[in-house]
Amino acid sequence: MKWEDNVRKVIPYVAGEQPDISDMVKLNTNENPYPPAPGVTDLAKEMDVEKLRLYPDTNAEPLVDVLSEYYGVAKNRIFVGVGSDDVLAMAFLTFFNSDKPILFPDVTYSFYDVWANLYRIPYKTVPLKDDWSIDADDYKVPNGGVIFPNPNAPTGLFEPLEKVEEIIKANPDVVVIVDEAYVDFGGESALSFTDKYENLLVVRTFSKSRSMAGLRIGFCIGSEKLIKYLNDAKYSVNSYTMNLPSQILGAEAVKDDRYFKETLSKIINTRERFKKELTRLGFTFPDSKSNFIFASHKTVDADHIYNELRKKNIFVRHWNKDRIANYLRITIGTDEEMDKVVKALEEILGC
Amino acid sequence: MKWEDNVRKVIPYVAGEQPDISDMVKLNTNENPYPPAPGVTDLAKEMDVEKLRLYPDTNAEPLVDVLSEYYGVAKNRIFVGVGSDDVLAMAFLTFFNSDKPILFPDVTYSFYDVWANLYRIPYKTVPLKDDWSIDADDYKVPNGGVIFPNPNAPTGLFEPLEKVEEIIKANPDVVVIVDEAYVDFGGESALSFTDKYENLLVVRTFSKSRSMAGLRIGFCIGSEKLIKYLNDAKYSVNSYTMNLPSQILGAEAVKDDRYFKETLSKIINTRERFKKELTRLGFTFPDSKSNFIFASHKTVDADHIYNELRKKNIFVRHWNKDRIANYLRITIGTDEEMDKVVKALEEILGC
Repeated sequence: MKWEDNVRKVIPYVAGEQPDISDMVKLNTNENPYPPAPGVTDLAKEMDVEKLRLYPDTNAEPLVDVLSEYYGVAKNRIFVGVGSDDVLAMAFLTFFNSDKPILFPDVTYSFYDVWANLYRIPYKTVPLKDDWSIDADDYKVPNGGVIFPNPNAPTGLFEPLEKVEEIIKANPDVVVIVDEAYVDFGGESALSFTDKYENLLVVRTFSKSRSMAGLRIGFCIGSEKLIKYLNDAKYSVNSYTMNLPSQILGAEAVKDDRYFKETLSKIINTRERFKKELTRLGFTFPDSKSNFIFASHKTVDADHIYNELRKKNIFVRHWNKDRIANYLRITIGTDEEMDKVVKALEEILGC
Repeated sequence: MKWEDNVRKVIPYVAGEQPDISDMVKLNTNENPYPPAPGVTDLAKEMDVEKLRLYPDTNAEPLVDVLSEYYGVAKNRIFVGVGSDDVLAMAFLTFFNSDKPILFPDVTYSFYDVWANLYRIPYKTVPLKDDWSIDADDYKVPNGGVIFPNPNAPTGLFEPLEKVEEIIKANPDVVVIVDEAYVDFGGESALSFTDKYENLLVVRTFSKSRSMAGLRIGFCIGSEKLIKYLNDAKYSVNSYTMNLPSQILGAEAVKDDRYFKETLSKIINTRERFKKELTRLGFTFPDSKSNFIFASHKTVDADHIYNELRKKNIFVRHWNKDRIANYLRITIGTDEEMDKVVKALEEILGC
């Protein structure tokens, strides 16, 4: 039909599947195995449902307030969205409008090229080194913007802050985005650089470390100017993105810092233990500072292991893509879940 | 700074203010004066907060299921979003990519030109007739798409379905969007036309008639093809837009049809009673089929009335814009609230 001529046709991002099988071990979308802070449950029960008839706060003040206090950053330097994907998509639309290509690693979060295609942003992927690390020199060329996750996904590799700063310093004329979805699991944040570099945006999410994938909360911190531009674009799309439950329950999650840190250290301990098991079973992997491990077996195909795990109702992530086809990305669950994975791998590998 | 050269600069939509004063009468953003259905409160208390650690259903199945049943439309003909603004913004991005201008009324929802500017869509506004009605002939010219609300906002005027169909029939080569945010308050829906016209999209919201502005739920119904294109674009922006509370509480609201219809008829009764009072007080207004009235006083300036009402903590909407500067848009609240407005108007007008 003729009306289809002017439809924006895209190849959408494919999210990890969301199976719903009792007894499954779901380690394919980097969710947190622990529930949100106990206070969230209490607050949910007390939620004033009558208030749902009214529009929520358009600036998501309850949420921005606690983030401002927690990170010690002025409120007008914080932007929140419906998951970090919403924040990132808005940042692509707002900041990447150059004729020059934006730059990001060849192996990275697979939404970057999807947003670039959707918004018709020219882009160039920069190959990671053989050890999956970034070569800062690759980002010292003319470009329309820079984005990379730290730790990177799906490799889990954390880049030292000196290298991050080297890339920021080399790119004063474009916006640089550091996507820190996984930084709470042992990386160091580039947040303090946002005081110094007006063109730096640091993006975070509640979906991983804060056990709140189901609420859809992401945020970013940057200079007052960057955040103003982002808000202008946001208010040109949707005045009210954060609903009441996400504003009040999200705020509550931030307030319980003890629970947050306990959860993080449990996951980190499980990860380190699981690394040893993987090594014992013949896997190699970059040294992950995230809540997942990107592992390849020395002799057995990733595809085979992936399918065998599925048969045992253990879901991990696998991509049929250049360079990473022989890798599995395994989310860190509870100790019990990882024990099941180890047992399953022993059976699959016959050891 | 040089990085600012490539920032998308926009003039954002300005939403109605959200004052929070005890004892205020808030009639400026067309919210519903009645709370969501009682079942929603019960369900909120039972919500399984543990599940928030997981990503929500990416297709928002719980919500789409009940909408499919309620409207008797296949699930793959329904798209949901974070309020109808999210749905409309996504539709603009997906469907309005022609070099020819899209068409919409000169007096209408003031987000349309904002989205057009943001996405760099050429547009032309079509003047409404003096009685605020649409002349269908105006839409029989080459264009890149058509959108109008029915009932229109802020006039409240409902266009008969024959005229709506006339416009659809005249535009088979572009996407036609009928924005039915207010149709539940006494208009007739163009929904059944979506069976017949593959290029017609009908957009709805939970924010007005369903008392759920605070949850951010909108949806649209169209042909399978239109919805597929919309979903492809959506999955290129954000895999998970509808959080768990909005999916389960939104679904519950649809299930209680008796409460829904009771609420609607209360608002309609209040509106009709308020119309008589407005006429008595010397106002003129199009015959609203929505939950607001667009009124102008025969002798007293709208601006003056607006400011005097504010002093009495009564908030209505007023725009300093061509053609509508002498009008107030007054949301229909409870009978008690409208009595307060009438009393305040009597004082302001000295009658």
